[in-house]
Amino acid sequence: MSEYNRSRLRPAPPWTTTGLWLNTFEGQPLELAALRGRVVVALAFQMLCPGCVQYALPQLSRIRRAFHPSRVAVLGLHTVFEHHAANRPETLAAFSHEYRLDFPIGIDAPDPHGGPMPVTMAAYAMQGTPTLLIIDAVGHLRRQAFGHVEDIVLGADIALLAAEAGGTVLSDPATGGAASMREEACRLP
Amino acid sequence: MSEYNRSRLRPAPPWTTTGLWLNTFEGQPLELAALRGRVVVALAFQMLCPGCVQYALPQLSRIRRAFHPSRVAVLGLHTVFEHHAANRPETLAAFSHEYRLDFPIGIDAPDPHGGPMPVTMAAYAMQGTPTLLIIDAVGHLRRQAFGHVEDIVLGADIALLAAEAGGTVLSDPATGGAASMREEACRLP
Amino acid sequence: MSEYNRSRLRPAPPWTTTGLWLNTFEGQPLELAALRGRVVVALAFQMLCPGCVQYALPQLSRIRRAFHPSRVAVLGLHTVFEHHAANRPETLAAFSHEYRLDFPIGIDAPDPHGGPMPVTMAAYAMQGTPTLLIIDAVGHLRRQAFGHVEDIVLGADIALLAAEAGGTVLSDPATGGAASMREEACRLP
Amino acid sequence: MSEYNRSRLRPAPPWTTTGLWLNTFEGQPLELAALRGRVVVALAFQMLCPGCVQYALPQLSRIRRAFHPSRVAVLGLHTVFEHHAANRPETLAAFSHEYRLDFPIGIDAPDPHGGPMPVTMAAYAMQGTPTLLIIDAVGHLRRQAFGHVEDIVLGADIALLAAEAGGTVLSDPATGGAASMREEACRLP
Repeated sequence: MSEYNRSRLRPAPPWTTTGLWLNTFEGQPLELAALRGRVVVALAFQMLCPGCVQYALPQLSRIRRAFHPSRVAVLGLHTVFEHHAANRPETLAAFSHEYRLDFPIGIDAPDPHGGPMPVTMAAYAMQGTPTLLIIDAVGHLRRQAFGHVEDIVLGADIALLAAEAGGTVLSDPATGGAASMREEACRLP
Repeated sequence: MSEYNRSRLRPAPPWTTTGLWLNTFEGQPLELAALRGRVVVALAFQMLCPGCVQYALPQLSRIRRAFHPSRVAVLGLHTVFEHHAANRPETLAAFSHEYRLDFPIGIDAPDPHGGPMPVTMAAYAMQGTPTLLIIDAVGHLRRQAFGHVEDIVLGADIALLAAEAGGTVLSDPATGGAASMREEACRLP
Repeated sequence: MSEYNRSRLRPAPPWTTTGLWLNTFEGQPLELAALRGRVVVALAFQMLCPGCVQYALPQLSRIRRAFHPSRVAVLGLHTVFEHHAANRPETLAAFSHEYRLDFPIGIDAPDPHGGPMPVTMAAYAMQGTPTLLIIDAVGHLRRQAFGHVEDIVLGADIALLAAEAGGTVLSDPATGGAASMREEACRLP
Repeated sequence: MSEYNRSRLRPAPPWTTTGLWLNTFEGQPLELAALRGRVVVALAFQMLCPGCVQYALPQLSRIRRAFHPSRVAVLGLHTVFEHHAANRPETLAAFSHEYRLDFPIGIDAPDPHGGPMPVTMAAYAMQGTPTLLIIDAVGHLRRQAFGHVEDIVLGADIALLAAEAGGTVLSDPATGGAASMREEACRLP
């Protein structure tokens, strides 16, 4: 069974959030529709989910750094399905500050019928957190992956989707870490 | 100064090897020209270079796993510029076996004038090891990076070059690690 | 300047907590004085402090696993000095649950004068989080370290203090990870 | 079955080496007997064994840094049991240079009867590489572990054995990494 499905071409369901957004201009809500023309890489996460903190959020920051922001938009969606009382907006704000997250983060709206799963999480039929969504420039959901996806694969996927709409994809051809980890390299004298 | 140059469009110099190849059919030599139509990702390395062993060779294996072999060819080139007596072919063969390297590895030909730098390394004006080369499907050298390049950036670069020639790029849409690192993930009950 | 001071032999100040403890029998508070006879390894942390989550708390779990519980007691102390509104007890409880912390955790009492630094944190003159405290079997504060201390050094320090009181120190001579990471080992045929 | 045996109190068998040592004064051979009075932590390794390179040799360097050299001697023993032709002394010398190993390394003597296992490796009945040996100050083999042992446990073990002979054990009370990994720590304003 493929959880990393490249074939489905259905429109990405709109997000239903509480209206409170972090890291946007004056806390204004974002609409997915407003990001058409760009590939959207979104991470559904919970701040108390160890896998989100250990690998998925750092990966999202690497994606944000690698791709040109005019071509690839990076978003977070806080999808709380457990420990609801513990996951208050002010805690999320402090979490975002301490971990230096600088991409917009929406808060998934609670189930109006009182169930544990929030609205957007249910609309996408997610299995848990972290879940990565990739939405192409015309608004189709192209990838949905629960768990970890390797950076190599993700870099390739995002680049190919961004290239569908043309133009330069990567943020800065000169960087990309080539300057780092030099101390273990062997240099010509 | 950019060491990760995406702009130069010069033909990749041919490789001059000793003729002894590892991990090819019956040890037969490979020619870059024979790989036209595929993107070639090649790593110039030395088996006694810590950075090559710690991050560059594992990265090459991840690249090999991620991309479809009909679209992306992965090669190693053993470019010895120090400790020549220590770097004998039988030691390289044992190294390749122990580290389970399964891509073809050529051995750069020693300088006929007795200098320390081997022939292909000089032809590419490399600065040391590890150095990653990316050659596009028509044989142009598109990238040359000394040191470490992030997986996200590399995945994007290779995918874009492979896509220039059309067709499916990634090896298997269903994999890519989505199944791993699940124990830290938070699953719906 | 040494922040990892082995020389001072002053009594460890008592802890002033809110009375609410996690991971104790029926939530009953612990007193340092009740742990005399054992070395106490205590970590002052904040659940929203990245360094606490990434390296200090996992290290505390390794310490707990390595040493015999009759000889070494492992404790957490939640010392909130920023983002007070975000750090509510129910959030800490959810955090402890999700990260599978199983050692007792006290909550440092807020400053009665309304300052940001909690009472116990001030009594120990801590500089921030994570801060590791090691208290010997007779109640002296023997080590106080802000930041990261290597496992090798910490293992040695705790063992030497535990040995001052005699008896077996490590939890299980047969374990200690010797069985792990075998896949990269080279085994005789 | 315990491979990390703390109970056996047999004399450590003497080492039989080729006579060629690395990183000793003028290449002079070392005798275990000459190290009496110190705890000896020795690693049997092969330079082409991935687990030795990835975790065991870096751990040995951490041990060397943590303990006072007058109390704890750190040694390597190159125990080649496969790829004999590939493991020549000049290759080991280049490996030691590139990985910046600075402890004495002996080369286990080949089996005089032509078998694959070298003499000292057989005398200790080792199962493969990496194997860690800990010999106490009076020359008893106190630990022998094939595979990986956690730093916490190893730090404790070495410290306790070193303390049997009295005196200061750790190399420098002020260090031990407390200054590192500060950027993720949370500091009081």
